[in-house]
Amino acid sequence: MRRKITVLPGDGIGKEVTRGAVEILETVAERYGHEFEFQYGEIGGQAIDNTGSPLPEQTIETCKNSDAVLLGAVGGPKWDNQPSHLRPERGLLKIRKELNLYANLRPISYYSSLSESSPLRKEIIEEVDFVIVRELTGGLYFGKPSERTTHDGKEAVVDTLFYQKDEMQRIIELAFELASKRRKKVTSVDKANVLESSRLWRETAEEIAERYPEVELEHMLVDNAAMQLIRNPRQFDVVVTENMFGDILSDEASVLTGSLGMLPSASISTQGPNLYEPIHGSAPDIAGKNIANPIAAILSAASMLRLSFGMEVEAEAIEKAVGETLDSGSRTGDIAEGQVRTLTTTEMVAEIKGAI
Amino acid sequence: MRRKITVLPGDGIGKEVTRGAVEILETVAERYGHEFEFQYGEIGGQAIDNTGSPLPEQTIETCKNSDAVLLGAVGGPKWDNQPSHLRPERGLLKIRKELNLYANLRPISYYSSLSESSPLRKEIIEEVDFVIVRELTGGLYFGKPSERTTHDGKEAVVDTLFYQKDEMQRIIELAFELASKRRKKVTSVDKANVLESSRLWRETAEEIAERYPEVELEHMLVDNAAMQLIRNPRQFDVVVTENMFGDILSDEASVLTGSLGMLPSASISTQGPNLYEPIHGSAPDIAGKNIANPIAAILSAASMLRLSFGMEVEAEAIEKAVGETLDSGSRTGDIAEGQVRTLTTTEMVAEIKGAI
Ligand SMILES: CC(C)[C@H](C(=O)O)[C@@H](O)C(=O)O
Ligand SMILES: CC(C)[C@H](C(=O)O)[C@@H](O)C(=O)O
Repeated sequence: MRRKITVLPGDGIGKEVTRGAVEILETVAERYGHEFEFQYGEIGGQAIDNTGSPLPEQTIETCKNSDAVLLGAVGGPKWDNQPSHLRPERGLLKIRKELNLYANLRPISYYSSLSESSPLRKEIIEEVDFVIVRELTGGLYFGKPSERTTHDGKEAVVDTLFYQKDEMQRIIELAFELASKRRKKVTSVDKANVLESSRLWRETAEEIAERYPEVELEHMLVDNAAMQLIRNPRQFDVVVTENMFGDILSDEASVLTGSLGMLPSASISTQGPNLYEPIHGSAPDIAGKNIANPIAAILSAASMLRLSFGMEVEAEAIEKAVGETLDSGSRTGDIAEGQVRTLTTTEMVAEIKGAI
Repeated sequence: MRRKITVLPGDGIGKEVTRGAVEILETVAERYGHEFEFQYGEIGGQAIDNTGSPLPEQTIETCKNSDAVLLGAVGGPKWDNQPSHLRPERGLLKIRKELNLYANLRPISYYSSLSESSPLRKEIIEEVDFVIVRELTGGLYFGKPSERTTHDGKEAVVDTLFYQKDEMQRIIELAFELASKRRKKVTSVDKANVLESSRLWRETAEEIAERYPEVELEHMLVDNAAMQLIRNPRQFDVVVTENMFGDILSDEASVLTGSLGMLPSASISTQGPNLYEPIHGSAPDIAGKNIANPIAAILSAASMLRLSFGMEVEAEAIEKAVGETLDSGSRTGDIAEGQVRTLTTTEMVAEIKGAI
């Protein structure tokens, strides 16, 4: 197969880890007889420096004109004091809207070889395996008004949590589809005892559940979900929630297994290319040192093969190679846990490449 | 001293644990020569059953006409399918507004005798000691509009995150006051890279920080805070945040030390009586069995003595008695961790009483 992939390295370690992922994709292409054409685009802080915009038009065009997008990371202290429309994150928020990336999928899974890195006790974290499905283009992130105002002559401010029902439907449907291929349980997270939007969310989830009689639907309040993720994360299979709750819970979830540097994510488009990116940030403190863990980016590339190109065998080949590399004791610094010798980014990439 | 205390037992184990707390308060009164007059009010599900309202006018009057309020818990499956204005939680939300309870304080502290109950590894949870200061009467909880609507002819819904700057000022100020008497660090949690309200929050925090040069102010994004609570909770001293973020983070924080059944909270009023309540819910599954842990309610009563009545010595006497009782190995079922004999609620109350 021939496929066009847009790579957006972005800032900090984004460059290093996407470089590693591209190398792995090239290895897969060679091995399985595919042709991947890579095109590059600018996003985030480096795009601001080079073009004055965190997401230049040119990047949007390049992405739309491709079969999938691989993103590194954006942001860094250099741009922290910019006005908000000139912040690296704006590039991220804008690309989600431009490509209609309505769903962010974050699988959280336990690696037994890394159990020592988890902040949780082994008996709680063992066998954890769930996916958080986060709505990505609605809610408080994009609702208007979002502005300074006055109230009884006093300074005030307003943000708006807005959703259309069809935006809820498509994301909840996706969660049920996923669950029907997994352990058949959807946990829908809301705050229905306070928010009207959550009550519509809950109704919508009930409606969609009727079409999936084999999947169990459970409602959970967001405050309780924040507790349950720590107390008993094994209870979850597919967790679906709105944008802001998803932001908080998916970051909380990502530290449970102790393998933040290994977690991929996929953002699914209504039409057009999906976007794949590691969960971790740009890690300015270790950028450019060739010590970042490339595994999250590499596993994001594997998700791309599976979800965008239907290349299940190839995706599994990458995942298996990562597993074997870890089992053999290879570690970058972030997951080393007192191990004496740690690998550089390029060494880790080479080991995984060798294992494919 | 003579003080009038309103007790709102509410639903489920609320009744049992407040009964225990009242007994302890009576012991303290006798011992230290105070006179506490207890008056009782209805709230939550049982108030709905008896009066048709989750917070009858009479209860509001009783509370306003007292020096402090002790609440048990509200809610239960019996009222889960009521329309939203007839849900037990409405009583809670309404009393916060009626009494102007603008700040909820939740101290999270580690009990070395309970380290086995924590889902976190001992080396992460040891010595944890921070307070979450949550704004309690603003934001998404009370903003208008909060309603169904249509957009381009399609079903939609809106909730509103609204804050006045002076609402931010008073809560952030409280956090700085607290921190100046503790380890002198305030972590202000927001989502300033997305929300306009968070940007005003951050500015406000900066302004107030200028008046407390001895206190360090740190800003943290809410998603990162959800991670940091698990990865390194010892870094926190005073955490201050808006209502919804506070709801999520304080519940997350409350399971870290493994002592949910022991955590008190205090809700501070702009004027008028403060309200004290355990963090745990009404636990319908164990209600009426005399096995609930009364310690959270008892420690809430201790906070009342300290914060509402200025009775520092008496508050410490209760806290010390709780500590000794735990050190001696006494446990209710929730914190027993495989211990053979566990105490009933009344037995635990009696032990603490004996230790005062
Ligand atoms: C950078 C920020 C705007 C973004 C978000 O809040 O969505 C990030 O936290 C994420 O989760 O991808
Ligand atoms: C019951 C509910 C409305 C309430 C809240 O969200 O504030 C509860 O979760 C709490 O934290 O006291």
